[in-house]
Amino acid sequence: MGMNSNRVAGQETTLKIQTESSPPLEIHRVCLPPNKTGFQRLRHRLSEIFFPDDPLHRLKNQTPLMKFILSLQYLFPIFQWGPTYNLSLLKSDVVSGLTIASLAIPQGISYAKLANLPAIIGLYSSFVPPLIYAILGSSRHLAVGPVSIASLVMGSMLEETVHHTEDPVLYLQLAFTATFFAGLFQASLGLLRLGFIVDFLSKATLVGFMAGAAIIVSLQQLKGLLGIAHFTSKMQIIPVLSSVFHHRKEWSWQTIVMGLSFLFFLLATRHISLRKQKLFWISAAAPLTSVILSTLMVFFLRDHLDNHIPTIGHLQEGLNPPSANMLYFHGPYLSLAIKTGLITGILSLTEGIAVGRTFASLKNYQVDGNKEMMAIGMMNMAGSCSSCFVTSGSFSRSAVNYNAGAQSVVSNIVMAATVLVTLLFLMPLFKYTPNLILAAIIITAVVGLIDYRSVFKLWKVDRLDCLACLCAFFGVLLISVQIGLAIAIGISILKILLHVTRPNTVLLGNIPGTQIYQNLSRYGEAKRVPSFLILGIESPIYFANSTYLQERILRWVREEEERVQVNNGSSMKCLILDMTAVTAIDTSGIDAINELKKMLEKRSLQLVLANPVAEVMEKLHRSNILESFGMNGLYLTVGEAVAAVSLSLFKGQP
Amino acid sequence: MGMNSNRVAGQETTLKIQTESSPPLEIHRVCLPPNKTGFQRLRHRLSEIFFPDDPLHRLKNQTPLMKFILSLQYLFPIFQWGPTYNLSLLKSDVVSGLTIASLAIPQGISYAKLANLPAIIGLYSSFVPPLIYAILGSSRHLAVGPVSIASLVMGSMLEETVHHTEDPVLYLQLAFTATFFAGLFQASLGLLRLGFIVDFLSKATLVGFMAGAAIIVSLQQLKGLLGIAHFTSKMQIIPVLSSVFHHRKEWSWQTIVMGLSFLFFLLATRHISLRKQKLFWISAAAPLTSVILSTLMVFFLRDHLDNHIPTIGHLQEGLNPPSANMLYFHGPYLSLAIKTGLITGILSLTEGIAVGRTFASLKNYQVDGNKEMMAIGMMNMAGSCSSCFVTSGSFSRSAVNYNAGAQSVVSNIVMAATVLVTLLFLMPLFKYTPNLILAAIIITAVVGLIDYRSVFKLWKVDRLDCLACLCAFFGVLLISVQIGLAIAIGISILKILLHVTRPNTVLLGNIPGTQIYQNLSRYGEAKRVPSFLILGIESPIYFANSTYLQERILRWVREEEERVQVNNGSSMKCLILDMTAVTAIDTSGIDAINELKKMLEKRSLQLVLANPVAEVMEKLHRSNILESFGMNGLYLTVGEAVAAVSLSLFKGQP
Repeated sequence: MGMNSNRVAGQETTLKIQTESSPPLEIHRVCLPPNKTGFQRLRHRLSEIFFPDDPLHRLKNQTPLMKFILSLQYLFPIFQWGPTYNLSLLKSDVVSGLTIASLAIPQGISYAKLANLPAIIGLYSSFVPPLIYAILGSSRHLAVGPVSIASLVMGSMLEETVHHTEDPVLYLQLAFTATFFAGLFQASLGLLRLGFIVDFLSKATLVGFMAGAAIIVSLQQLKGLLGIAHFTSKMQIIPVLSSVFHHRKEWSWQTIVMGLSFLFFLLATRHISLRKQKLFWISAAAPLTSVILSTLMVFFLRDHLDNHIPTIGHLQEGLNPPSANMLYFHGPYLSLAIKTGLITGILSLTEGIAVGRTFASLKNYQVDGNKEMMAIGMMNMAGSCSSCFVTSGSFSRSAVNYNAGAQSVVSNIVMAATVLVTLLFLMPLFKYTPNLILAAIIITAVVGLIDYRSVFKLWKVDRLDCLACLCAFFGVLLISVQIGLAIAIGISILKILLHVTRPNTVLLGNIPGTQIYQNLSRYGEAKRVPSFLILGIESPIYFANSTYLQERILRWVREEEERVQVNNGSSMKCLILDMTAVTAIDTSGIDAINELKKMLEKRSLQLVLANPVAEVMEKLHRSNILESFGMNGLYLTVGEAVAAVSLSLFKGQP
Repeated sequence: MGMNSNRVAGQETTLKIQTESSPPLEIHRVCLPPNKTGFQRLRHRLSEIFFPDDPLHRLKNQTPLMKFILSLQYLFPIFQWGPTYNLSLLKSDVVSGLTIASLAIPQGISYAKLANLPAIIGLYSSFVPPLIYAILGSSRHLAVGPVSIASLVMGSMLEETVHHTEDPVLYLQLAFTATFFAGLFQASLGLLRLGFIVDFLSKATLVGFMAGAAIIVSLQQLKGLLGIAHFTSKMQIIPVLSSVFHHRKEWSWQTIVMGLSFLFFLLATRHISLRKQKLFWISAAAPLTSVILSTLMVFFLRDHLDNHIPTIGHLQEGLNPPSANMLYFHGPYLSLAIKTGLITGILSLTEGIAVGRTFASLKNYQVDGNKEMMAIGMMNMAGSCSSCFVTSGSFSRSAVNYNAGAQSVVSNIVMAATVLVTLLFLMPLFKYTPNLILAAIIITAVVGLIDYRSVFKLWKVDRLDCLACLCAFFGVLLISVQIGLAIAIGISILKILLHVTRPNTVLLGNIPGTQIYQNLSRYGEAKRVPSFLILGIESPIYFANSTYLQERILRWVREEEERVQVNNGSSMKCLILDMTAVTAIDTSGIDAINELKKMLEKRSLQLVLANPVAEVMEKLHRSNILESFGMNGLYLTVGEAVAAVSLSLFKGQP
């Protein structure tokens, strides 16, 4: 309790020691952080966890009317940009909206197929969700609609239990229900400001996961490209490949020739656009062009083909039918729907947030993660009631949107309008569109997800990140999409834990002529201080590492004693622990320090702590351990500790 | 790559800047750590993970013969203390050995009942394992035998699937198999030097878990104390209590009177011994005394009792029969046996290691965790082949052993010899021992596990630790032993992750007249440096916090800009990040720093890093990000950064 007086800042916090030979030695006391009640601490802590961006700071010092307007603008960003919207912006948005619509229509149909859903669901999903997002979303460049990974995962998870061919109605019900839960989950994350959960999917994990998923998706498309009728519904590489070769007799050369030609065409346009950013419209227009061309080809050759090339077939004209009555809230498959919703929800959210942030940082505006989550969640919940499946911001379409000059979410409205026209009037045109073209479009879209350059970079910079990446990749390929993801997240977390479990301890030395104490093995000019052992601990001290640190520090002491013996140096008197990097401590850590102190005392060694951070200082104080350290066990810097302890050690000597 | 030249230590690492008004400004370059190959780094890393205690250091500079002897002593500690063992040590060990035997015999029988095993298995388990431990173990005070928590968990886990009354042989097989896997797991942990896994059971977790388990165990003993014949096999508090009151009619007053009297006697002796350490023998002798007294009472009153008091009954005389043939390595229950083995293995290991360390630190010798694991693992594997169930070092018996003056593991050998005599000649004496006395012994033993004082302390020092403790407690009471444990471990890990996900960032200021930069809110005398924003980041930068940190730092910048505007201060020019506590960085963290730099450049703010630690420096270097920082973006201390940047900012001004 003796330290409490130091809470009064400014008084008596420095201590001057006058010696004969040197200038006055100034010793600064280590302060406790300002006294806070448990409630204040909890409030501060919670506000840092849930409101790190201080979302209400705009409302400070405003009139009530302005507060209302600002809140409205905060909740519905459309009120923010709406009033200043003008014709020149609209022109850009119409051009980009039409461009992404030409991409969204074939991709929508393709991704619906990927989720084992009727093709028209893909179009429905490109109509309602973009409109909702236009009202709530804060990214200007996000192109909203079905996305490949979430579609794939939904398809594979539902298909494991319910076959879409055997019970199409139940399958559809489950898909809508999963979409509803995905939206509910996403909106709750945003509302509860738990957006940081998404951060646990590290980039390294995502690179591996996406590459694995892309390969699985591409291989599955061999069904369409080769014209195989009986195909496995499994998602692992081995059953898929064996299914491809097992059904060799079903391969149809007409499909193969046409499919490969269009695949080559699409990949070539993608390659051109990647090389020259200005030619982005080539790859943007290619899918619709391919769809039109292939449909025309099949239409004119229909008498010669004898049904050798499967087509989409008849699609019902008309707007999204309501589907709230198809949601499935009780029964044996509810847990499946919830699980699927959670996983597709988090995956689509990750993609949407990442895409939004990427383009926002290119144009130097901010996207609020929690608000985006609410927007994406609301649009999925609305979507599930209007015959849509999981949607999000797609990376490929958003890039096209950005390159086509989109200025605001109005481009999404234009796209939705185009889809509306298609739904109302153009559905019969898809009757002869061959399935192979959908396969080619999917492959072209997902090939871009294989980012092998990042893997090399990961290997160069961080081997463990690279391992997480590879585990995610092989997990997805060989086991399953969910397990692959779980393994990768597990490894990422394990990496954090490993760092905490086995923290670095480094030997510090003084750089002559300064008060700087640095790693001896890194700085050649740093010198050991005789009679002292100075260790830097580079981690919080937790239950997970307290035993290790205790043993490791005792090993340092043992090694130093051996070194002193060999060199006939002056014997060790004091161990200084530089606590600057010990950013937190728990009860096990405090016990460990206490025990260490006792063990060192038995060897007549003094233990001194230098620069404990506020949180650690407070815990040391509350656990009453500070009393045993007293005034001579705690210093603000290593330099002051060395000076003060030297003085007290050699006092009385000439 | 330009930094590579700095790896040559000592050359050109300081830079002197001469100004007109001030003394020469000395700037130290930030060095890269010594260049290591990937293999060297991996080796260093692995040796820190697996061999932090450098177990081979004793063998350095020794002759081959000495190396052989030292290795033998390392593997079999008996060779270490054996040669110097003498008669006076033996005398102490005989006294303490007999004392713990008097405790081990009734406790062994009781704990076997706790695991739903025949009483004699408990005696077998107090014979073979102590002998094995005497050869391999390195703790001098550990009293080996069955332990309450592991027995309870084994009983509850196996009983969930196989009822010991319905299929006693299968149950026994599974118990031996689980013991075998527990031993295998423990020995492997030691052999693979993965002992740190045990550290993940934090003290806070264990306090809650043990208290919950103690209450469950005590309530279960109501069966014996009240004389109920039909009792639930469930382990949750609600079914146990409802079973107690449901079977009110089976309560027998004879049992209740006798049981409560002995329980009171045992608790009273425990209380006396706790008050006066010297009277430890009172509580040590009490169980055996109670067994003898109660047996005699039942024997003499046997005609009056009409079987109202259930007794142990006939026990087979003889040594441990071999049971290797009962191990069960294939079949439907294998996974149950493995799971039970893993959990009881880790629990008994935790208790054994903690007990060993506690008494070692009291007598100032070291217990090697990994070696202890091998010893405990080997004794359980041997035990499983000689009709023993899971054993470990028991806290209560070890404390008695210590107080009785044990000097070495020979006290375990004496105890085993006493048990041997019991097994060979004294078994008929237990025929009339009532079950109620076993219940009273168990309750007395586990009551000590309820450590409510620690809970208060946890609440005072660390609320989150306290939460983990309470979750473990209620998890065990209300759900199940395994789930309670899992929840508690989950919360402990979540706590680490939460600290990483939402790290502190603190505003630093200069303490006038020094080169010390400290937390402005904590040190009243610290002053802001005009034109600079200096932030300390108190955590590694990982995927889990890179987005948060980026946004939080931008908020600091925004708030500083607002503050400057309000106060008409000099505008901000430079953001200095004190990286001392950033002990690691991953690829997401590097991306975040890169992005932050770009964002600040758009606001014409310079980003400077101060004192990156070796690992961070190396990663920054390998990711080629250092080039974009150049010579003016990296300084060894905050002070030098401020000095150098000020100089370059105001160069040319008068």
